[in-house]
Amino acid sequence: MMDKQGILVVLSGFSGAGKGTIMKALLERHDDYALSISATTRKPRAGEVEGREYFFVSKEQFLSMVEEDALIEHAQYVDNYYGTPKRYVEEQRAAGKDVILEIEIQGALKIKEKFPDALLIFVMPPDAAELEHRLTGRGTESPEAVRARLKRAAEEAVGVEAYDYILVNDQLDTCVEELHQMIQVQHSRTSARIAMISKMRQELSRLG
Amino acid sequence: MMDKQGILVVLSGFSGAGKGTIMKALLERHDDYALSISATTRKPRAGEVEGREYFFVSKEQFLSMVEEDALIEHAQYVDNYYGTPKRYVEEQRAAGKDVILEIEIQGALKIKEKFPDALLIFVMPPDAAELEHRLTGRGTESPEAVRARLKRAAEEAVGVEAYDYILVNDQLDTCVEELHQMIQVQHSRTSARIAMISKMRQELSRLG
Repeated sequence: MMDKQGILVVLSGFSGAGKGTIMKALLERHDDYALSISATTRKPRAGEVEGREYFFVSKEQFLSMVEEDALIEHAQYVDNYYGTPKRYVEEQRAAGKDVILEIEIQGALKIKEKFPDALLIFVMPPDAAELEHRLTGRGTESPEAVRARLKRAAEEAVGVEAYDYILVNDQLDTCVEELHQMIQVQHSRTSARIAMISKMRQELSRLG
Repeated sequence: MMDKQGILVVLSGFSGAGKGTIMKALLERHDDYALSISATTRKPRAGEVEGREYFFVSKEQFLSMVEEDALIEHAQYVDNYYGTPKRYVEEQRAAGKDVILEIEIQGALKIKEKFPDALLIFVMPPDAAELEHRLTGRGTESPEAVRARLKRAAEEAVGVEAYDYILVNDQLDTCVEELHQMIQVQHSRTSARIAMISKMRQELSRLG
């Protein structure tokens, strides 16, 4: 028995923690989800595709989206803007899909403020050595860039307490199923079942 | 990856919602749990066994347990006292077992106050007509007693908002697995992973 409105899920985590791989596997295995694509002013990395990883926009385009109230949140990270287009999220949630936003910690905290029922999940590797190993193994980043990412990760870990769950990405299959369960049990949170509770109360009063 | 301390789970729900059957199935299927047995001054019902459903004690015995601080919570319900013996709960949690307390709403609220990380789950039948049907079908209660229970249920539903989850007992197997997942994902709550987060931060600072 599901409530009708989809849940808003925010997935964050250190780069190198494996968010992308986890999301891909989750969407392949379960039909319950829609992935929100962010708009960003940052340049595409090698292999990134317009409308798949991000909508790549100019600073002017981005600011006009802000102006038109077309983003549910936006944040600046290093020198770039990132934001979540509103329309897709609202449509998918109304259709009963749980919508996943893969966003940075700043944006996540804004979402939680605006949508207190949003579920915030932070992905971590089992330990820091594994994170370093994965970032190095990518081969797309210089040793200096890896160090900068690790330093940034240490800073990011400061906001982690605001998240609901820590998802440890040790073994992929286990991790994906755990993520699925974290989200699915959210449908049974008391706050998501208020309508059912009211109905039950009315019926009980009539019978009792 | 589990934290070492077991979780404290409170399971409540209308009588007739099927708590007993759910708990029995959960304990048969999963090794993760220990069931706390309450002490009560109420008389045993037909089929109830000392030390299985309850420890049946006199009012004098009960009050001396209160005096000795041997209960983690106690409450009065109708004319009887109910309480949770402390020692068993502490031992089992220390051994990494998730301990389930099947207690009334008053006791549940006291537990939440004392242990903010306790997980409160309220079991409901899919609708009120089903509850009436199950209470009548039991055959152990007069029509007047059934009506009294339904009335009491309507009153109990008032405290339900304090619970974390509503577990709908529609189909038993689904319900038992959902309960298992509700509890298991709790091990990944940020509050349960503070030690891991601190360790990660220290390691990242060293590497970055």
